[in-house]
Amino acid sequence: MLDIVSQAMYKFVQQCDDAHVLNLYNQIERGKMLRSKLILLIAGQTPQAVELCAVVELIHLSSLLHDDVLDEAHTRRGRPTIHMLFDTKTAIMLGDVLYSKAFSQLSLMDKEVAYTVSSAVTSLSIGEMIDIELSKSFNTNQQSYMDMIDKKTASLLEASTKSAAILADKDKDSFAIYGKSLGLCFQIVDDILDITQDSETLGKPAMNDFKEGKTTLSYMLLYHELSDDDKTKLRSYFKKELSTDELNWIKEKIKKHDTIDKTRQIAKNLAKDGLNAIKHEQNKKLFDIIQDILNRER
Amino acid sequence: MLDIVSQAMYKFVQQCDDAHVLNLYNQIERGKMLRSKLILLIAGQTPQAVELCAVVELIHLSSLLHDDVLDEAHTRRGRPTIHMLFDTKTAIMLGDVLYSKAFSQLSLMDKEVAYTVSSAVTSLSIGEMIDIELSKSFNTNQQSYMDMIDKKTASLLEASTKSAAILADKDKDSFAIYGKSLGLCFQIVDDILDITQDSETLGKPAMNDFKEGKTTLSYMLLYHELSDDDKTKLRSYFKKELSTDELNWIKEKIKKHDTIDKTRQIAKNLAKDGLNAIKHEQNKKLFDIIQDILNRER
Repeated sequence: MLDIVSQAMYKFVQQCDDAHVLNLYNQIERGKMLRSKLILLIAGQTPQAVELCAVVELIHLSSLLHDDVLDEAHTRRGRPTIHMLFDTKTAIMLGDVLYSKAFSQLSLMDKEVAYTVSSAVTSLSIGEMIDIELSKSFNTNQQSYMDMIDKKTASLLEASTKSAAILADKDKDSFAIYGKSLGLCFQIVDDILDITQDSETLGKPAMNDFKEGKTTLSYMLLYHELSDDDKTKLRSYFKKELSTDELNWIKEKIKKHDTIDKTRQIAKNLAKDGLNAIKHEQNKKLFDIIQDILNRER
Repeated sequence: MLDIVSQAMYKFVQQCDDAHVLNLYNQIERGKMLRSKLILLIAGQTPQAVELCAVVELIHLSSLLHDDVLDEAHTRRGRPTIHMLFDTKTAIMLGDVLYSKAFSQLSLMDKEVAYTVSSAVTSLSIGEMIDIELSKSFNTNQQSYMDMIDKKTASLLEASTKSAAILADKDKDSFAIYGKSLGLCFQIVDDILDITQDSETLGKPAMNDFKEGKTTLSYMLLYHELSDDDKTKLRSYFKKELSTDELNWIKEKIKKHDTIDKTRQIAKNLAKDGLNAIKHEQNKKLFDIIQDILNRER
């Protein structure tokens, strides 16, 4: 089902008519196409829906290209990133080529879909900027974290499910809520995996977020439960390369305070909101996707 | 006349609803708004035309933000660039925010205009990539230089004049030719100024292009006129920090072979093509703009 999306993406990149771009594109590590799965489940496998999938996936790839430059990430899903294979300049410009190609195709589509998806890119870019800003100091404000992941991760998922609903003439507001909840849920679980999984499973260094200045939800929940001395200790570990002992201290505290379960519960509540919004749909696969996100281990 | 465009741009950035973005935006060095001048001269000062101007100027600013990161430029028109004032990450993301905001606004406009302008962004991004590729070795191929500046510089000018003609129900193909010729002309003159002007006038280091690996048109024309020994010498200077004596050697050769005049003649011929395309228009100001570009000294 997703092969047809990959073909549409390839066709769009071919239309850019530049051999170097096509060659680079072939070397980008692809994702699991979550956004396309959702769009096709909601709108059905129509030519319009496939085109929307291709556009959204190109936008997602572009955002990852720029995100990897920002995060100075060496690998994504265990494979070297474009800016490591080539250089930062190439990653930025390839991102711009794919972004603008996606926007050109969008401009040929339904106006509301075009506006919804392109506005989401503004949100996700602002989300990335907020992520950078928040990473400059130890953040204990849960609301600012939720706002940041809403923009950075949930916005494009929300735009995808909403646009799919527009194409299929379904209730766009319900599907927007579903997509947003799913997006928040996805990012919270992603942040949990950084703590609970090893680097081999992640395809990138484990417990890397805190070192990078990202005080994700679990760190916030933990922080508020710690004694003053331990609060100071956790703060002193922020944005540092930690020893095994220090990492283990964090892990033990997280275990003692059931922090992962508590974080997961927040994700579950969000999932429930999302499922509630589309309960009239009786679409089992949309339920399953949220379950898969909650249960995923990599 | 251009104040109203600045106001429209500011309104769009305000709509992004992020104080940090607005603050950064206020610190970007603005240009002379050549694209807006052209659009308003062709389409008149209608609300639609002003909106198109704001969109195109935001796109132009975004491309400069990314371009300055690519070129590692410390200043633009004598003022520090955003990635120097802040950091590379901020410059990339601010560019993405302004790009996507421009695309969102475009999606609300005439479909052909939206497609024309967004496709131009693909071209200009590919142009930037070709520029990087060409800068890796001494390029003596005039055709590849012309193709690169066509994409990097002329594409957005062509899209601007064409889109303005679409809005005003004028002959879009003629205005596209005018915009493209003007764009090529602009870049060739810009490349001449790098050689003929001092750093104070330029607001950036003088004779910087060759050091950066950019074998611009004058260097190509000169190269083909040199003896084999001098060819070897010029090649040996490529992409190097040169002494005053070495720089003077290049300048003398350029003077001896009338290279600047010959380069300027190519720009003049392009200008003639552009003016020919719109000769039925009798719009003196559009003639004057090309003259100003040919005669500009900074």
